[in-house]
Amino acid sequence: MKKFALIVAGGVGSRMGAGVPKQFIELAGKPILVWTIQRFLDFDPEMELVLVLPPSQFERWQQISEQFQLAGNIRLVGGGETRFQSVKNGLDAISDSGIVFIHDGVRPLVSSETLQHCFQTALEKGNALPVSPVVESLRKLSGQESRHVDRSRFRLVQTPQTFQTELIKKAYQQPENDFFTDDASVCEAAGIHIHLVDGNPENIKITNPMDLRVAEALLKTSRH
Amino acid sequence: MKKFALIVAGGVGSRMGAGVPKQFIELAGKPILVWTIQRFLDFDPEMELVLVLPPSQFERWQQISEQFQLAGNIRLVGGGETRFQSVKNGLDAISDSGIVFIHDGVRPLVSSETLQHCFQTALEKGNALPVSPVVESLRKLSGQESRHVDRSRFRLVQTPQTFQTELIKKAYQQPENDFFTDDASVCEAAGIHIHLVDGNPENIKITNPMDLRVAEALLKTSRH
Repeated sequence: MKKFALIVAGGVGSRMGAGVPKQFIELAGKPILVWTIQRFLDFDPEMELVLVLPPSQFERWQQISEQFQLAGNIRLVGGGETRFQSVKNGLDAISDSGIVFIHDGVRPLVSSETLQHCFQTALEKGNALPVSPVVESLRKLSGQESRHVDRSRFRLVQTPQTFQTELIKKAYQQPENDFFTDDASVCEAAGIHIHLVDGNPENIKITNPMDLRVAEALLKTSRH
Repeated sequence: MKKFALIVAGGVGSRMGAGVPKQFIELAGKPILVWTIQRFLDFDPEMELVLVLPPSQFERWQQISEQFQLAGNIRLVGGGETRFQSVKNGLDAISDSGIVFIHDGVRPLVSSETLQHCFQTALEKGNALPVSPVVESLRKLSGQESRHVDRSRFRLVQTPQTFQTELIKKAYQQPENDFFTDDASVCEAAGIHIHLVDGNPENIKITNPMDLRVAEALLKTSRH
């Protein structure tokens, strides 16, 4: 079964400081996005990668790609105005059938075990969503009030959200909607049941300077 | 207004490896619990600390306390079978009225800003619960199914959960109950409205080896 990774890296400005889009910020000597892509190529060097970036960043990416000698089969696709549009553009660039991993460009710590879980479950059941338990107490807001809820009944969602290509391409034919916060919610709106698998706890999304320090510490000791 | 910190450190075995209770594991050269206590003494050197530990660990604590020359006013109290019992034992050791911070011994990264927010709000409103936003998508389980929920309506709960002493002592007169997962839930069961304040994102609870690596990275750059 053919494998595709659709890596979405839409950052343009930066909340991280330094004016560098977050996917290009250096983490232990390499741009975050290079680490992310390397995780997929380590898992399967034959995988086809579709990298969705704002077109204004294509040239910069070419320089980075040459500098770090990324060896895989990587196609560039222009991002849209929203994450939904960006993913849709990426899916449009995939014509063969197979399994597609849709992954945040700024999650460089996904493990091979997580990728394998996602692949296997998507192959058998159509889709797979890597999740992690909620480790702190959880409260639900309602107006000015809040109440304790049972955290064991909740899961935090990571990426790669993984799908059979036909299934996700069909779901993305729906009109865009504010409720679509991730690919699983797009699928759910199309009536598809979502399957959860265990993610790896290190698989954090880097969105601020604290996350960057955490990721540096985890990279030093993480298993691939 | 008098300030008390009730530090609960109930770990006996260890999921962290090495057979050392997690509160005594070394983090950047000092036991986690020493870092935690230091945060409160940095915030207010006059604060009275009540440290709740399994009695079997009192001797070890005395050695650590001398080795690291902790200067504050720290009383030792024996923990109970459950967290509820341990907190209750600690509260019983506080006779004066004031504001009490009930804090996990393995949260060494609480900031002075968080302590100040908690103190001020508990002073004005009776209690304060430091929380942080949920940064990843969230799903709710129900049987074999799960569904997307709006993460912006949820908050993750940190410590110190902070209270006027009379209020929390009264709430802890209730019989113990499986629904009591933290001090706020004990208060809620007594009909008390809980007030949320912003915690600091670094204020993680150290429960596994990954958390320890993260805490080491954060300690190097965190503000007090």
